[in-house]
Amino acid sequence: MSNADETGLPADLGEQVRRALAEDIGSGDLTAALVPAGQTAQATVLTREEAVLCGTDWVGEVFRQLDPGIRIDWHASEGARVPAGAMLCSLDGTARPLLTGERTALNFLQALSGVATITRRYVAAIDGTGARILDTRKTIPGLRLAQKYAVRIGGGSNHRIGLYDAILVKENHIVAGGGIARTVGAARRLSPGVLLEVEVETLEQAREAFAAGADRLLLDNFPVERLREAVRLRADLSPSTGLEASGGVTLQSIRAIAETGVDFISVGDLTKNLRAIDLSMRLRFAGAR
Amino acid sequence: MSNADETGLPADLGEQVRRALAEDIGSGDLTAALVPAGQTAQATVLTREEAVLCGTDWVGEVFRQLDPGIRIDWHASEGARVPAGAMLCSLDGTARPLLTGERTALNFLQALSGVATITRRYVAAIDGTGARILDTRKTIPGLRLAQKYAVRIGGGSNHRIGLYDAILVKENHIVAGGGIARTVGAARRLSPGVLLEVEVETLEQAREAFAAGADRLLLDNFPVERLREAVRLRADLSPSTGLEASGGVTLQSIRAIAETGVDFISVGDLTKNLRAIDLSMRLRFAGAR
Amino acid sequence: MSNADETGLPADLGEQVRRALAEDIGSGDLTAALVPAGQTAQATVLTREEAVLCGTDWVGEVFRQLDPGIRIDWHASEGARVPAGAMLCSLDGTARPLLTGERTALNFLQALSGVATITRRYVAAIDGTGARILDTRKTIPGLRLAQKYAVRIGGGSNHRIGLYDAILVKENHIVAGGGIARTVGAARRLSPGVLLEVEVETLEQAREAFAAGADRLLLDNFPVERLREAVRLRADLSPSTGLEASGGVTLQSIRAIAETGVDFISVGDLTKNLRAIDLSMRLRFAGAR
Amino acid sequence: MSNADETGLPADLGEQVRRALAEDIGSGDLTAALVPAGQTAQATVLTREEAVLCGTDWVGEVFRQLDPGIRIDWHASEGARVPAGAMLCSLDGTARPLLTGERTALNFLQALSGVATITRRYVAAIDGTGARILDTRKTIPGLRLAQKYAVRIGGGSNHRIGLYDAILVKENHIVAGGGIARTVGAARRLSPGVLLEVEVETLEQAREAFAAGADRLLLDNFPVERLREAVRLRADLSPSTGLEASGGVTLQSIRAIAETGVDFISVGDLTKNLRAIDLSMRLRFAGAR
Amino acid sequence: MSNADETGLPADLGEQVRRALAEDIGSGDLTAALVPAGQTAQATVLTREEAVLCGTDWVGEVFRQLDPGIRIDWHASEGARVPAGAMLCSLDGTARPLLTGERTALNFLQALSGVATITRRYVAAIDGTGARILDTRKTIPGLRLAQKYAVRIGGGSNHRIGLYDAILVKENHIVAGGGIARTVGAARRLSPGVLLEVEVETLEQAREAFAAGADRLLLDNFPVERLREAVRLRADLSPSTGLEASGGVTLQSIRAIAETGVDFISVGDLTKNLRAIDLSMRLRFAGAR
Amino acid sequence: MSNADETGLPADLGEQVRRALAEDIGSGDLTAALVPAGQTAQATVLTREEAVLCGTDWVGEVFRQLDPGIRIDWHASEGARVPAGAMLCSLDGTARPLLTGERTALNFLQALSGVATITRRYVAAIDGTGARILDTRKTIPGLRLAQKYAVRIGGGSNHRIGLYDAILVKENHIVAGGGIARTVGAARRLSPGVLLEVEVETLEQAREAFAAGADRLLLDNFPVERLREAVRLRADLSPSTGLEASGGVTLQSIRAIAETGVDFISVGDLTKNLRAIDLSMRLRFAGAR
Repeated sequence: MSNADETGLPADLGEQVRRALAEDIGSGDLTAALVPAGQTAQATVLTREEAVLCGTDWVGEVFRQLDPGIRIDWHASEGARVPAGAMLCSLDGTARPLLTGERTALNFLQALSGVATITRRYVAAIDGTGARILDTRKTIPGLRLAQKYAVRIGGGSNHRIGLYDAILVKENHIVAGGGIARTVGAARRLSPGVLLEVEVETLEQAREAFAAGADRLLLDNFPVERLREAVRLRADLSPSTGLEASGGVTLQSIRAIAETGVDFISVGDLTKNLRAIDLSMRLRFAGAR
Repeated sequence: MSNADETGLPADLGEQVRRALAEDIGSGDLTAALVPAGQTAQATVLTREEAVLCGTDWVGEVFRQLDPGIRIDWHASEGARVPAGAMLCSLDGTARPLLTGERTALNFLQALSGVATITRRYVAAIDGTGARILDTRKTIPGLRLAQKYAVRIGGGSNHRIGLYDAILVKENHIVAGGGIARTVGAARRLSPGVLLEVEVETLEQAREAFAAGADRLLLDNFPVERLREAVRLRADLSPSTGLEASGGVTLQSIRAIAETGVDFISVGDLTKNLRAIDLSMRLRFAGAR
Repeated sequence: MSNADETGLPADLGEQVRRALAEDIGSGDLTAALVPAGQTAQATVLTREEAVLCGTDWVGEVFRQLDPGIRIDWHASEGARVPAGAMLCSLDGTARPLLTGERTALNFLQALSGVATITRRYVAAIDGTGARILDTRKTIPGLRLAQKYAVRIGGGSNHRIGLYDAILVKENHIVAGGGIARTVGAARRLSPGVLLEVEVETLEQAREAFAAGADRLLLDNFPVERLREAVRLRADLSPSTGLEASGGVTLQSIRAIAETGVDFISVGDLTKNLRAIDLSMRLRFAGAR
Repeated sequence: MSNADETGLPADLGEQVRRALAEDIGSGDLTAALVPAGQTAQATVLTREEAVLCGTDWVGEVFRQLDPGIRIDWHASEGARVPAGAMLCSLDGTARPLLTGERTALNFLQALSGVATITRRYVAAIDGTGARILDTRKTIPGLRLAQKYAVRIGGGSNHRIGLYDAILVKENHIVAGGGIARTVGAARRLSPGVLLEVEVETLEQAREAFAAGADRLLLDNFPVERLREAVRLRADLSPSTGLEASGGVTLQSIRAIAETGVDFISVGDLTKNLRAIDLSMRLRFAGAR
Repeated sequence: MSNADETGLPADLGEQVRRALAEDIGSGDLTAALVPAGQTAQATVLTREEAVLCGTDWVGEVFRQLDPGIRIDWHASEGARVPAGAMLCSLDGTARPLLTGERTALNFLQALSGVATITRRYVAAIDGTGARILDTRKTIPGLRLAQKYAVRIGGGSNHRIGLYDAILVKENHIVAGGGIARTVGAARRLSPGVLLEVEVETLEQAREAFAAGADRLLLDNFPVERLREAVRLRADLSPSTGLEASGGVTLQSIRAIAETGVDFISVGDLTKNLRAIDLSMRLRFAGAR
Repeated sequence: MSNADETGLPADLGEQVRRALAEDIGSGDLTAALVPAGQTAQATVLTREEAVLCGTDWVGEVFRQLDPGIRIDWHASEGARVPAGAMLCSLDGTARPLLTGERTALNFLQALSGVATITRRYVAAIDGTGARILDTRKTIPGLRLAQKYAVRIGGGSNHRIGLYDAILVKENHIVAGGGIARTVGAARRLSPGVLLEVEVETLEQAREAFAAGADRLLLDNFPVERLREAVRLRADLSPSTGLEASGGVTLQSIRAIAETGVDFISVGDLTKNLRAIDLSMRLRFAGAR
């Protein structure tokens, strides 16, 4: 599996793997020494629960860094839905690096598949509405780019990556800036060409933000009925402005929110929590030793 | 809050924070520019749910890297149980770096407090038994040392950190090594003085492992009744050998396991999943501007 | 001068300075040893030509890393236009680190002021038209974030930072994707919510791109007359779509381009070439020694 | 193209490329996803102007890091003079990494060829005189080793790399050290065996520096006639001492300077400014898809 | 020679090599340029003195980073005792990277073989006693993991790696903790499951430490007779507690110490000093050029 | 003690310390937790043997990274000769970081003082001759810049730092280059202005190297009598060419070598071996707690 087969991979993938291997191996794998140096083996990775597969390039990189001679065959592709019990891949090569890399490889795969799987559930919950699922900046430190990738694999969309590629005007900025209109104007002058979103708490503020020419409004913790009014207001005042709902979104509540007609729903749960998929690796020594 | 106030802090704390800030800030914080450069502010961090506080040194490091002039006063100490609604700390200083660091600081605090909180629950569930809660090597890549620290803060104990500081002999090694006795002997010769644990699947194997002089036995997926027999066997054969139960441990099942008399119970859930604590930061501009 | 005083600074500023100091100092500054260890000095930085000042935070970081005791007073602020002969700042402190850091500090200041100065010239050239100056991804390797910051200081705007925060559909993608409409559709599905620009070579293609709903059109190497037609077409077909001109833009040609009514003009010259501002630092030892 | 084919390559080449790719790719290349994963392509890099080719190993490293399966054939070798319109190399492999690496590869090649090309012009301008072109420490932060390499490829020579491998005694050191003779003596004692150069402003100072036994004199901003006198003085007083002219050297003025008989002429323009060579990459998809 | 053939290798091996190559190559190998680019060569590495071979993976990594095409054949394996004059390995490939990597490769091999050789001597000196040789935390900064690996290759055992994987209670902690019993109790509560060793200075203290349940006692600078008494005391009070002697251990004194019946003897000399093995590399150009 | 007080410090000092602390602290210092968080202490560092003090800036950096509040007073200055039993410095501050940093600080100080001390002995052995002591590229991987600094502190001189800042033509290059004269000529063309040394094995070769204009000759393993002849030859043929003796130099043999009249003697023993100075740190808790 080559780097070239997947696009949109984060530039720090190799570095992430290097760090994770260093955490686990430290001064050296003491247990692998019990297996003869030349011994070869075959291993298979299985999933014990249904999941959306994500992280195959990380697994490839783990073993590439330990021993480029290990061969991996994937039986499901990145982003595929795999049933409980499915064999995800088989690996062939020297036994020691297979044992040394097992935990690190599974740690990436179970975490990223976990993100993709929960994302897919949110996406399915709003199927047929026009809304899209967005992630947030509430991520696990050091893993943001990988998590944002997994959200894409799960069918969600990325809200911008960090503080540098979009402007989100909040209450504090409005206070500091002297009202919505002046603050939006200042932001446009300072950073023209950048997506500009305004967080509003009332319909009155929404009205001001439409007038000021925001690209998108963040409707934080609006009840469903008020979201619907905001959608109507938008149709009257500024049809091309995006509307994003956020705040306390769950798998139970999301469909009602999506049916109000908002364009985006951002879900902190996708990336601030993590539910690892239950995976296992089985290894069998090859031939007579 | 000085680095010196907490011991046991991971050596890579500064590097973790640098990486997380780089993820979020990238080419620069576009929104903070809307606040005047000299504006000062006061901020408070609150928790919206009961939690075990963990990660205060990470918060300190985030703001130290952005602006050493920011002052933080903690109203609860590392490891304290804080009720829903509690104010965790207040911050004073220039508004821009306070806004720029907010999310990264909260991302660390919500994640590490999440680990400490869930650990504390497992610890409470076995209160009064002699057993101890251990973590595992199933961790979030790049965050292992921080998670292991949070487990300690939560009252749990660390299983060893990685492949380099303990030996865990599994079925594969026993096959490769020609039986339990010979494998344990080889491990002792290769790595004397290192904790040596043997994973067993039957009482017959447990007997062999006691005889071979393992420091500890890992009883994987043993039903409660069989755990009790293993405890009895240990009393007869090798009273100083440790016993560790693992496999599918939940908050519901753990007390029954602990009451069998095992010494350690390892819980993957502590570190492979993550449930972030719900925190918020509020900021108020200081004085007239 | 604190980090907190300027926003929008790249997260890798400290790392850039560390690297540049390592390049220059290597195994140690042999010449500074000729000055007594305790000797203090005052230094001033002057510009020999008119410039837009940019990079003051880099200068601060250079000396902060060498000796936090050095004091810097700036006589002009970031982004100010300074005349030939102006004193930019004065520095006080121990002589050795002042001498050791001189060249690295000036190398940053002369390069970034160079970028800001040339950007300001392009901005001035189109003053009064509605168009904005954009930079490109043609940057000096390792310096992109700093250069993009300097463009902002010069009054220009950043085209997106890299491959990860906007989509630019070119001829090759259109061929691979089966035409403009289908390619734009695929891009929207893969990366919803991301700015999507289409490079067109003819007015016919522009028409298709308007119909497909691109956010912006890149009109590459269009003569002025054809740019004007594109602007008219836009008014008819898709008033909210942005238009960007690029290709061979110079200080001589840019005003005519801007007057066609395009919204953005991207200029490779801002960041692929570098004309350092001519600066010098003068140092005088303090008191009797 | 193997690392082994070119010597004198900086040790940080791989790191430079890693950094530049990270700048451009960040969280992933969104546009390359529009091309099918398995699609292969052929690409060619052309130069639109005459140049001295420099940076081929950087191009090789860019694509090696993205996809080791990409094949590059160079049609001109490092250091060759190539005419406008020349095809520099052709590349074969998977289309996505070719598209992802294009800009980073060209950014290195256009910058380093720019340095080599301007250097070659200065070298040609003094052809037949005995003088040599030197670079300076006025370089672009982070790129010094690469620029110094490009100067060598262009036919120039490196002044020493940084503060650590030569001593340049300036006015300040002479003041601090109590005159030229005593300062040179101190420098010899502190750092024996290191090239020791003294910057002089008058012929009187030159006389003292010859007497003190400097290895080389830096004649800063001497008019041509005074340079000639310094050369005559050297013949009388210290024939083995080197003479270096510096200060405001241009392509117009350099020949007259070289003909005075100085040994070295240092030119800040080589590395403090950058004029990128105008290159382009064309890509064609292979076969039927 | 693949990474997979040796286990227990430190995770930072690649990084160690990268750093060492950067130290030596810097801006480029100027001398290797004197050899034609395509020239191939054969080289052999010889030892001029008897040694225990250690560091073969570091040699492999040095040349892999410079040119993956170089082939290395080892004539002795890691950990083998090699006589003076023995040929250790032969290398085939392009001459330039062979010359460039020679010194760095030898620097690793001579240092690590030096550590393994001195360790083997200590191990031999106590042959037949039950005691084991341990290293300490007195190591060469930046090389600890490599040195600890070499100690294992030499037949010694690692005392724990650092401050994080064992507890060593010293006089200061006992004072701070309110006596041995209370301090040991506190340590068990804070870090259950971690090896706990207590340093004692008298037999009275040893008695307390046995009673407190320490895992091991460090008998620092005990004369041989007192060591014997401590061994007798242990037999009476706490047979399963380990005993470690330390302090001023030499090749002359160690056997008498081992014969007292202690379990471990820690030797600072293994890793705080370094005696490099005398190696040389010979190179012969291949075929006609 | 500020960075500014010592010049010639390697640029990677901070990074060296960071790495060494990470090696020792890893996931956290478990033992320091036994001391109350607020407890303060005073510590003193003593030397148990006579030494040349070296590494004070490394000690300062260790504690600065752990806790900037720790105060260090040095009772001897860098490069001073200190007698056995001397107190080197006293430290005041919080007890935990003092205990955590102790070993890393001492590891640097004992190693670098070891290098400076042995260097001083070689320097003393040739006192009054005109020769100078040089180090070599036989260094401990990762520590070269620090060792070269310690050699300077000890009174020795640095041979150049690595492959990039001087040319050393050996037998292989002469064979590849077609004789001494042609090889020297080629080296001058490729790298003008760089120190060029030729290794010779016979007086006949020395004659050729003088004629070719080498800057220096390396006389490898010449017996004393032949060294004397080389000095005489130099007086006749090329008085300004340097002469360097090397090979098997010991404290016993070096004076005879120096008295032959060579200019430089390079000594591998300075940096390839390491004899740590025997230091200790004593700590006393402050006041009542």
